[in-house]
Amino acid sequence: MVALPDNHYNESSGHYFDWFKKYSGNHKLKITQIRNATQIIEYAGKRFLVDPMFSDKDAWPGFEGTVRSEIRNPMVALPLDIRSLLDVDAIIVTHTHPDHWDQAAADSVPKHQLIYVQNENDKALLQHQGFTNLQVLTEGCYFGDIELIKTTCQHGSDAAYGNPQLAELLGDACGIVFRHPSEKTLYLVGDSLWVKTVEENMRNYMPDVLIMNTGWAHVLGYGAIIFGKEDIVRAHVVLPDAQIVATHMEAVNHCLVTRQDVLEYAQINQIQDYVSAPADGESLVF
Amino acid sequence: MVALPDNHYNESSGHYFDWFKKYSGNHKLKITQIRNATQIIEYAGKRFLVDPMFSDKDAWPGFEGTVRSEIRNPMVALPLDIRSLLDVDAIIVTHTHPDHWDQAAADSVPKHQLIYVQNENDKALLQHQGFTNLQVLTEGCYFGDIELIKTTCQHGSDAAYGNPQLAELLGDACGIVFRHPSEKTLYLVGDSLWVKTVEENMRNYMPDVLIMNTGWAHVLGYGAIIFGKEDIVRAHVVLPDAQIVATHMEAVNHCLVTRQDVLEYAQINQIQDYVSAPADGESLVF
Repeated sequence: MVALPDNHYNESSGHYFDWFKKYSGNHKLKITQIRNATQIIEYAGKRFLVDPMFSDKDAWPGFEGTVRSEIRNPMVALPLDIRSLLDVDAIIVTHTHPDHWDQAAADSVPKHQLIYVQNENDKALLQHQGFTNLQVLTEGCYFGDIELIKTTCQHGSDAAYGNPQLAELLGDACGIVFRHPSEKTLYLVGDSLWVKTVEENMRNYMPDVLIMNTGWAHVLGYGAIIFGKEDIVRAHVVLPDAQIVATHMEAVNHCLVTRQDVLEYAQINQIQDYVSAPADGESLVF
Repeated sequence: MVALPDNHYNESSGHYFDWFKKYSGNHKLKITQIRNATQIIEYAGKRFLVDPMFSDKDAWPGFEGTVRSEIRNPMVALPLDIRSLLDVDAIIVTHTHPDHWDQAAADSVPKHQLIYVQNENDKALLQHQGFTNLQVLTEGCYFGDIELIKTTCQHGSDAAYGNPQLAELLGDACGIVFRHPSEKTLYLVGDSLWVKTVEENMRNYMPDVLIMNTGWAHVLGYGAIIFGKEDIVRAHVVLPDAQIVATHMEAVNHCLVTRQDVLEYAQINQIQDYVSAPADGESLVF
């Protein structure tokens, strides 16, 4: 373990956080892409399963009212067996849209498993599904010595949220900042468009690694409800040293951006050294 | 000529404009795509040449500091001879970036030709080039009985304008609303990103036809400086009945969106009946 310096005030950001950062311990931050937004995050010696969508390929129809709804979901199979995915310390459900928490996940996850949810509504839903060990994320939440900071998303445009029915469907979603004294800071941004709070979170928490949901899911008549490839450039402008892991692509009908789109776009914009788009089953270590 | 009703106050927008709209006279609004943002607009019996870029194919290098700068500009030849393009009543130069007003245009356009420019700076530049009949666009400008309303653009992100050197390079650009009692209202939006003023102009002027520069030109390190394909959906949300003519594509190095991209995206979003992306030399009548 690298010795940590005393805390000191960072003038540029106004936050005490330097000691959290850059001092790798025995554990490496490891992100394994599973499918869509489902990932295994190994962080400070703990394993987290994020946004489990466990249904078989083609199990349900495309999302009504979204683009390409004739395509069935999930569009691809899981790359690993479900049992191996459940060997984790905690599950994080950023929100309960079925491409982040589906019936197959609810059926497979042990009822006593610790699950972090974004709010009381989602807690009630999972309680109703029989789960007994639920924790509502807050801005000051700890799992052991890992700080989990809930962050805000905007899961659609102002125009989309201006339609009451669509606003109800889109609902809330969250991101999470992972911090630990001996780990890089990770910001899982969540299902969001590029909005001021997302940029502010990047400036405030100065993450070393970003997970961005860049599939550019589209609702008919309202356009994008999650990031597209252009948002990796926006993130790079704010955090020029951060590594960006692009996910939530090529798995559900309404996502229009592919991994190849993201990687080609990164190349054209000459930021390819900062951008990854792991295949399902692929792991990245930071 | 269709009889015009008396002016009446439109409660939804708060403007007197209904009598301007929808009552076609002898003349049709005709837009001929030339190349890049260069177009011939026939409006209320007058012909306007917009943003002449007249250089030969490959005449100058790609724009330094932009994506794909190894590609020479213009990427394609003009579809018509320059002399035919100069048979107009007035020229409009939305700004003086060389893909909107190049040396070849300055050399070809007669010095006494009426040219509308966006501001005193561009007027001074064209005066220096020998032009003698320059008119600075304002919000209350008339060419005969055609009202030409200058509108504001934002030709790059806030981050891009936060870089003083880049802000100087990007500079100002403008759009124009064309209004006439016997014509559809046309909003040539200009080189802009989707910003509040653009949306406000759409709501205020309620154009029947939009010309949108959707080539998604990119500056290295800062991303897009003009509209991309997603902005046609944004425009459609605001103006669900408007026809959108997409232009400024496939002609200069830093534009990443093609006509095919726009048309496929319109199809996927089920707004294909409202979107055109004319080929160079093609005309559309409204």
